[in-house]
Amino acid sequence: MSNQKVLIIKIGGNSIDNVEELNLFIETIATIQTPFILVHGGGKLATDLAEKLNIPQQLIEGRRITDAETIKIATMVYAGYINKNIVALLQKNNKNSIGLSGVDANLIQTTKRVHPTIDYGFVGDLNENSMNTDFIENLIRFGLTPVVNAITHNGNGQLLNTNADSIANALAVSLASKYEVSLLYCFEKKGVLLHPNDDNSVIQTLNLEQFKQLKKEGVISKGMLPKLDNCFNALQNGVATIAVLKATNVLSFLNNTSNEYTKIIK
Amino acid sequence: MSNQKVLIIKIGGNSIDNVEELNLFIETIATIQTPFILVHGGGKLATDLAEKLNIPQQLIEGRRITDAETIKIATMVYAGYINKNIVALLQKNNKNSIGLSGVDANLIQTTKRVHPTIDYGFVGDLNENSMNTDFIENLIRFGLTPVVNAITHNGNGQLLNTNADSIANALAVSLASKYEVSLLYCFEKKGVLLHPNDDNSVIQTLNLEQFKQLKKEGVISKGMLPKLDNCFNALQNGVATIAVLKATNVLSFLNNTSNEYTKIIK
Repeated sequence: MSNQKVLIIKIGGNSIDNVEELNLFIETIATIQTPFILVHGGGKLATDLAEKLNIPQQLIEGRRITDAETIKIATMVYAGYINKNIVALLQKNNKNSIGLSGVDANLIQTTKRVHPTIDYGFVGDLNENSMNTDFIENLIRFGLTPVVNAITHNGNGQLLNTNADSIANALAVSLASKYEVSLLYCFEKKGVLLHPNDDNSVIQTLNLEQFKQLKKEGVISKGMLPKLDNCFNALQNGVATIAVLKATNVLSFLNNTSNEYTKIIK
Repeated sequence: MSNQKVLIIKIGGNSIDNVEELNLFIETIATIQTPFILVHGGGKLATDLAEKLNIPQQLIEGRRITDAETIKIATMVYAGYINKNIVALLQKNNKNSIGLSGVDANLIQTTKRVHPTIDYGFVGDLNENSMNTDFIENLIRFGLTPVVNAITHNGNGQLLNTNADSIANALAVSLASKYEVSLLYCFEKKGVLLHPNDDNSVIQTLNLEQFKQLKKEGVISKGMLPKLDNCFNALQNGVATIAVLKATNVLSFLNNTSNEYTKIIK
């Protein structure tokens, strides 16, 4: 591992849906001098488009099914609309950047999910050979900021939808042997909360034992579980710093002027 | 100009709309050993999507108006769906490639069209400072095939829709000082036709004098005019070889085994 720092910044749904919030966020992160990679999810835009097109969104056991029409919509919204608008905003703020899907430069090759009873459709799962980050390293050297979305491919011409948190994690782990990597999961809350409805009950540091305990007690549940599984996986695989925080607090976290975040520790 | 050859291959509407034709075309060009850049337009998919979403497509004096909803659709379809599917097909055929919009790496910065009487909406016109091809040269050096779509930006956060033929032309001219560039406009006909309804009346070579004469006689009209204006512009600006041909004839043109094409000459 070299001393060169690289940040992986993941932004999720709510930060993308609100145009003003997104503008402000991009304006803020464009000032960061450390090289960073922005990973984004989808927000509600894909669901809205599916609704307008009368394409029913199937849920089986609470999991969304990505059928042929839905992967088309996901590709249009994530790889097209959201990705290119984020890059345009970064360019506006003088941060030269480039939008990438997993298919571009063969960055992320995944495997269509196989499940004994549920057909998830065009969902791509990451495996140990998925990441091909040589090209990302070249972009960083070239001074370009990669903006990565969650559309991957199977190597056989099929685009697949992959979880954006998992992509951020896999990118961080893949780059950890070359750089001192910080992985920042930005979302709408200030961090992992002890009381889900109290935004000021941020757990400042969380280790694996505490996580297991809070999971058992049901304090941490739902969407936070896979996010935190990703965090601890990254920690165990050489990622130097991992935090869960509010998108608007990224700068104060990086500048050490706030303690409103959850840091994942050993 | 060095001796290194680079091809700019432009494919248009009909080659994209037909899935089987597109598959075959990508399979074919993936075998080309000379570095190439693929530039693609949109086809009917954007119009179809606008129709499904009940977004009326305004035409003023025969020209399409790109309003706020239409640039959104164009971005989703061109930069998302079509671009990423073409890259996925190239990857399937072992051609490592990368999809780019004009906003990526600030490749193409355009100016929103200003017209005394018509508001064309979010249409971006190329100017002499539009192209920023340093990054393309790096990709070629790196062995990656750029796949470029027609979504550009104004540098101030706004995405704009630009004519794909003009982008192919500007890319060719911009790279002509560094490489021996061939510009191939692929479309559904075998070339420029002397009799528009007879696909076998291909004009084999066309110079500027002949073009002016055929334009005056009304033999060449409509969509072919701006395409050929682009061709002669490229020829006057150092592009070595320019041809208009059928997508399926690219290999036979490159291998000199067919005379079914129109070559633009001085």
